[in-house]
Amino acid sequence: MAPPSQHCFNAINGATNNNGAVPAVMVDTSQQKLPCPTLLDADEFRRQGHQVIDFIADYYSRMGDYPVHPSVTPGFLPSQLPDAAPSRPEPDAFGSALRDVRDLILPGITHWQSPRHFAHFPASSSTVGALGEALTAGINVIPFTWTASPAATELEMVVVDWLGKALHLPESLLFAGGGGGALLGTSCEAILCALVAARDRKLAEIGGKKIVDLVVYCSDQTHFAFRKAARIAGIQRDQCREIRTCHANMFALSPTELRAAMQADVDAGLMPLFLCATVGTTQTTAVDPIGELCAVAAPHGVWVHVDAAYAGSALVCPEFRHVIDGVESVDSFSMNAHKWLLANNDCCAMWFKKPCALIAALGTEQEYILRDPAASDVVDYKDWTLTLTRRFRALKVWLVLRCYGVDGLRDHVRSHVRMAEAFENMVKADGRFEVVTDRRFALVCFRLRPQEEFGGEKTANELNRSLLEEVNAVSSGPYMSSANVGGMHVLRCAVGSTLTEERHVEDAWKVVQDRASAILHRMEIVYSVLG
Amino acid sequence: MAPPSQHCFNAINGATNNNGAVPAVMVDTSQQKLPCPTLLDADEFRRQGHQVIDFIADYYSRMGDYPVHPSVTPGFLPSQLPDAAPSRPEPDAFGSALRDVRDLILPGITHWQSPRHFAHFPASSSTVGALGEALTAGINVIPFTWTASPAATELEMVVVDWLGKALHLPESLLFAGGGGGALLGTSCEAILCALVAARDRKLAEIGGKKIVDLVVYCSDQTHFAFRKAARIAGIQRDQCREIRTCHANMFALSPTELRAAMQADVDAGLMPLFLCATVGTTQTTAVDPIGELCAVAAPHGVWVHVDAAYAGSALVCPEFRHVIDGVESVDSFSMNAHKWLLANNDCCAMWFKKPCALIAALGTEQEYILRDPAASDVVDYKDWTLTLTRRFRALKVWLVLRCYGVDGLRDHVRSHVRMAEAFENMVKADGRFEVVTDRRFALVCFRLRPQEEFGGEKTANELNRSLLEEVNAVSSGPYMSSANVGGMHVLRCAVGSTLTEERHVEDAWKVVQDRASAILHRMEIVYSVLG
Repeated sequence: MAPPSQHCFNAINGATNNNGAVPAVMVDTSQQKLPCPTLLDADEFRRQGHQVIDFIADYYSRMGDYPVHPSVTPGFLPSQLPDAAPSRPEPDAFGSALRDVRDLILPGITHWQSPRHFAHFPASSSTVGALGEALTAGINVIPFTWTASPAATELEMVVVDWLGKALHLPESLLFAGGGGGALLGTSCEAILCALVAARDRKLAEIGGKKIVDLVVYCSDQTHFAFRKAARIAGIQRDQCREIRTCHANMFALSPTELRAAMQADVDAGLMPLFLCATVGTTQTTAVDPIGELCAVAAPHGVWVHVDAAYAGSALVCPEFRHVIDGVESVDSFSMNAHKWLLANNDCCAMWFKKPCALIAALGTEQEYILRDPAASDVVDYKDWTLTLTRRFRALKVWLVLRCYGVDGLRDHVRSHVRMAEAFENMVKADGRFEVVTDRRFALVCFRLRPQEEFGGEKTANELNRSLLEEVNAVSSGPYMSSANVGGMHVLRCAVGSTLTEERHVEDAWKVVQDRASAILHRMEIVYSVLG
Repeated sequence: MAPPSQHCFNAINGATNNNGAVPAVMVDTSQQKLPCPTLLDADEFRRQGHQVIDFIADYYSRMGDYPVHPSVTPGFLPSQLPDAAPSRPEPDAFGSALRDVRDLILPGITHWQSPRHFAHFPASSSTVGALGEALTAGINVIPFTWTASPAATELEMVVVDWLGKALHLPESLLFAGGGGGALLGTSCEAILCALVAARDRKLAEIGGKKIVDLVVYCSDQTHFAFRKAARIAGIQRDQCREIRTCHANMFALSPTELRAAMQADVDAGLMPLFLCATVGTTQTTAVDPIGELCAVAAPHGVWVHVDAAYAGSALVCPEFRHVIDGVESVDSFSMNAHKWLLANNDCCAMWFKKPCALIAALGTEQEYILRDPAASDVVDYKDWTLTLTRRFRALKVWLVLRCYGVDGLRDHVRSHVRMAEAFENMVKADGRFEVVTDRRFALVCFRLRPQEEFGGEKTANELNRSLLEEVNAVSSGPYMSSANVGGMHVLRCAVGSTLTEERHVEDAWKVVQDRASAILHRMEIVYSVLG
């Protein structure tokens, strides 16, 4: 299927068909100096703003027509652009730039909002989420302290409590219960914040030089974000223990294994510092048993953080609350509302039981930061996160919660879970396939069963690698990703795009079946020739 | 001056005057379940999107009417909001939410876009910058690898080179010259990236346990972001050397002092690792002499990073190029395009001479990250920054460069420099005041001279503290911040809001003069009574 023609973008006034030639972009055609454009003029903003809104709306309405993943080769874009920015804008530079977004950029992106995007985890979009971002960018405040924008700070405090309640988090993690939270970009940052808070709390007791003795724990399924955070925080590279998981235990972190690992480190004179438990791992949405892990960690004074980047959104449904049983004992918790809760990228929420540990690690004080004399006991979010400059993300989250309501978010999550369940059932109904791990949320991990006549388990991974490649090569087909667990190469079908409907899931399965048939047929021929 | 009445926001259809009462917000009035709203419907997006555009345009057109800083006390907002998110959206929830943004949020924020905002450094807004953010949020891709959105990665590579050229950076920092760069949120992140790259390069030579021997350097004027980064990266807290600066040297870092500090550390068995030099310090826009500092750092193999968060934007003008003389020798460089280059918050650009050191520190590899077999030698930006999830900021920067042109950005910077110069001249023309440090860019640091008859230098700081408080308390007046340098409390007038015109600068000065006259008059009375 070809990408939608440029005619469909009614938004771009004066668009002309350039017959497929490389658009004449960014050529400075004016010889004389153009009048300097008005940089923040209300009327100009209105005119161009309506163009942008129509452009995006047109994009949404044609989303299904794009191949999810573009057929481009590295370097395709620079070769079509000049080497340097123009000195002066061309006439109608904005309209011309929008045409280039349509003709050069959109054909070269991976369409994460496509209803056929089943790769990775979703980048959840909504009308209100996108417009919340637009509003934030328009207002453009920098709420690094309370004084720097009081309403922005206070709205953030309100919405992290609202969100925590909606996700059934314990009150001890909320401002309302003596804890508190913040919004930031990604789980990578949240995990690093928690780790640095834990590290500095420990080092304050034992002395800074002991940093080299600290050990951190995770499973071999934990997202690389944690190992990256541990590196950044200066934990010795060989003191990040990745506890092995197994298929029999559905790739969850074993408390028994964790206990043994911690004891071994203590025996070796090292100091257990931090455990990153995951609710909904990236590969298979495995769920680490939080309560039991906390019980293992407690005697060592280990900080427990829960990374629920993806599955945290599912907690909006009471039927999923059990996956965080024992969460009352954790020190910190984070999830990405941009993954599955309609709050466009980026939007991570994190909560701490004792924010004072965080502030002790990340707090700053300097004369040039204005303070309101009447506001001495306020939250200054610069002391809660890695950065001083930050965005007013609370506005977006507030709009999403308010305009969709907690029930609306539940409906949204449940619709994806239902569709994933339908996909799972289709996989199960085809004897050539197997569902590799129990589906918990809206991700199905599956593969072609090892084919005894074609080498069995020995060729299974190659077979499934080919299958994924062929599925993703169908331009009107679904786009999926893979996992490697327990030595198996498996396909991941993550339902979660806001635009995905049942028919897209059914179509996706048909493409998988079709490609599998073709591959198995080819195998038959090869094996019959080889004898 | 009162904030603008709600009547001025024509954007909000059906807005009614609620006579100043607390708006009836977020009350779930529906007893029966409302139909689930369409979450990403093109028509709904169009309808609500146009409302948002008009809302923002109305806000811009009334910006000058708001007091820059709100008169609110901590807790004002939560007291007006429910304790939890609504279960179901109220009818016309979006319109109702926009009314609350107008009536509850806007009166409680600090209006960074006000033409009378002279505090901190600017949060530079433009029509194109804001709409670039809107477009990014609408398209909502996550370009963490090339494959995850090829055009997003390639456009980022293009624009960091475009921007680097526009700022007269040496080719060795650009992709075109074997270096390369990335866009991220803030300078805090850029500095941390550079520090971690430097640290891990060093530790790879000397062994990870030596982390406790590493020492980092800055001046007492360096932004706290650097000390925060050093803490996060696990540098011992007492091994961050803040070299003292002095007024005679305009608060620039002295190469002689740096040399002595490094030698002292080497003599003590420690290892100099990293220097953070600043071009345009936060307090007074001091400029550290990069070339000379690099010469001091080189024999120790110290990584030199230049933080040009604010003044980096000025480099678009050739007349400022000299402030980075010697930059060819640095290892990395960063600036915030959201501060003064019309690319709305957030947008930091960083460049590295040897990106391989960065990738060695921050690179990740995991099976579930999809790769295009045909794209083995591409930039995967997840390996360049702290986080894996990231935003498509390149679109905004590309639009800004293209729609305003390098000449347009120069005009923009120069207009602020001219206005700051005008303010400086007004200060100099009033004998009661003094300009404390040479103005280099668009920040004027000034104070009321010590008044001999009222205690001289002993009372000068108190006098100027009162002056700032009184100036900022004038609701139709300017909003400024302060610095504390060389024992002096000084006022900072940072010209940089996109909407600021000459008249706003003149009016600001009149308010300062007026408040100064009133304070000095009160002092006269007090001193005459006291004899």
